[in-house]
Amino acid sequence: MASVVRTTRRVEFADTDMAGIVHFANFFRYMEAAEHEFLRAHGLSVAMDWEGERIGFPRVSASCDFHNPVRFEDVLDIDVGLARLGSKSLTFACTFLHKGGLVARGQLSTVCCRLGPGQPLESIEIPAGIRDRLGATPSDAAS
Amino acid sequence: MASVVRTTRRVEFADTDMAGIVHFANFFRYMEAAEHEFLRAHGLSVAMDWEGERIGFPRVSASCDFHNPVRFEDVLDIDVGLARLGSKSLTFACTFLHKGGLVARGQLSTVCCRLGPGQPLESIEIPAGIRDRLGATPSDAAS
Amino acid sequence: MASVVRTTRRVEFADTDMAGIVHFANFFRYMEAAEHEFLRAHGLSVAMDWEGERIGFPRVSASCDFHNPVRFEDVLDIDVGLARLGSKSLTFACTFLHKGGLVARGQLSTVCCRLGPGQPLESIEIPAGIRDRLGATPSDAAS
Amino acid sequence: MASVVRTTRRVEFADTDMAGIVHFANFFRYMEAAEHEFLRAHGLSVAMDWEGERIGFPRVSASCDFHNPVRFEDVLDIDVGLARLGSKSLTFACTFLHKGGLVARGQLSTVCCRLGPGQPLESIEIPAGIRDRLGATPSDAAS
Repeated sequence: MASVVRTTRRVEFADTDMAGIVHFANFFRYMEAAEHEFLRAHGLSVAMDWEGERIGFPRVSASCDFHNPVRFEDVLDIDVGLARLGSKSLTFACTFLHKGGLVARGQLSTVCCRLGPGQPLESIEIPAGIRDRLGATPSDAAS
Repeated sequence: MASVVRTTRRVEFADTDMAGIVHFANFFRYMEAAEHEFLRAHGLSVAMDWEGERIGFPRVSASCDFHNPVRFEDVLDIDVGLARLGSKSLTFACTFLHKGGLVARGQLSTVCCRLGPGQPLESIEIPAGIRDRLGATPSDAAS
Repeated sequence: MASVVRTTRRVEFADTDMAGIVHFANFFRYMEAAEHEFLRAHGLSVAMDWEGERIGFPRVSASCDFHNPVRFEDVLDIDVGLARLGSKSLTFACTFLHKGGLVARGQLSTVCCRLGPGQPLESIEIPAGIRDRLGATPSDAAS
Repeated sequence: MASVVRTTRRVEFADTDMAGIVHFANFFRYMEAAEHEFLRAHGLSVAMDWEGERIGFPRVSASCDFHNPVRFEDVLDIDVGLARLGSKSLTFACTFLHKGGLVARGQLSTVCCRLGPGQPLESIEIPAGIRDRLGATPSDAAS
């Protein structure tokens, strides 16, 4: 299975809400940024040209469990890895830590799609070259 | 079980991303706003004084499945209801529709907490008066 | 000069920050939404096909002065009007009120551009038909 | 006058809009984060205890001119410095660059305030120790 990539980010003032903590919806922005860092670390991007086609990975689901709040200027460690590599889909798992303590855990599921100009999204099998870069064999060829 | 409350909102330009659709993290903001509309419709608020105590409902989990994208100026219908009323927790279920078609479905789970100034959050049983306003009996007294 | 359009919006929880008030950057989102409401009220849109061309209005500047803070669930009245109609540019002025009291004042300046696919933005004179709909004659033909 | 602090940040997917560029309101979030980096670099914070009092710097105005758009994964250099140090107020100036080219210029003005619990904001003279840390003498004692 592919490696885990660790990113860090400092909580910004605009990320907080009137409860004095990071607003929960921002964890989904944080997860997405970590996912994109993971892709960059594997020579990939969330929207790229691949063998003459425009390929993208729209989300099909997202979830997060919140264990402990974090505050302005806290520095988060975010570990992101591939939880599942299907024939057409990817699921990333994220763990958020602050000073080693668990903050939140989340998942993002995406589907590989061909992005034709003015066309509806069409899901496709993840190209072999992308699969190779992700450094993993399919865990579930039926997905 | 309590009623379903329908809210509508028009997608704003700032809610879109470079894929030309509403960014997925914004569905969590939309869900939260619908939840708060539900509470207002039942004479409650997400942060209120209740019998001399400050009561709040921090999130413990959030999830959403995305079925169809929506775009700038689309008008969404958002149906929100109580999916589960525990002794200390509430789970709201949201359905997002556009012109009658399914856009997304999500859930937000929150826990009733006492908010003392300078105190850590302390979970408590949902006060009977709040439970009455929610118009429901506990579906799971053990939660 | 064109009319003033009033919109209202209720402050959402996600719009607040740890100071307990609406985060200042959100006033720019609010202004933009009011500008788009103004355009809709005049039969226009911020991104539209016009006489066979794709026309848009990217921002060239934005500013806001903050007079009084607003909080969760406050209902804002936002008055937006055309402060200046140049040959190529538009400046919108917004006034934010809460219960009749001044909250903030801001301006957004935009330039009319042709949006060719894969082309850099090219500024153009505002088409006469759009100008007619805005209900105004140019205040400054030199801009 | 105090030094200029350079920060860098990579544009995230969630920062873009349907025009494929960074949404203009996000430049204000970026400016604020740069301002806070400047304060940290001078041993200060935007909300701190100082000689037994809670001190903060709410915004009174913000403005930005947009010269060139930036896109997903572009890395911005953001230079922030003190443009003006009044007796009660601070104005920060920001310059946004991409690969050395000008992207945007903006300003944030803030006023030093005492933040008493449950009290309205009260503007005060910037304490001498904070002024010393900012490394500057007032440019306008009358402000």
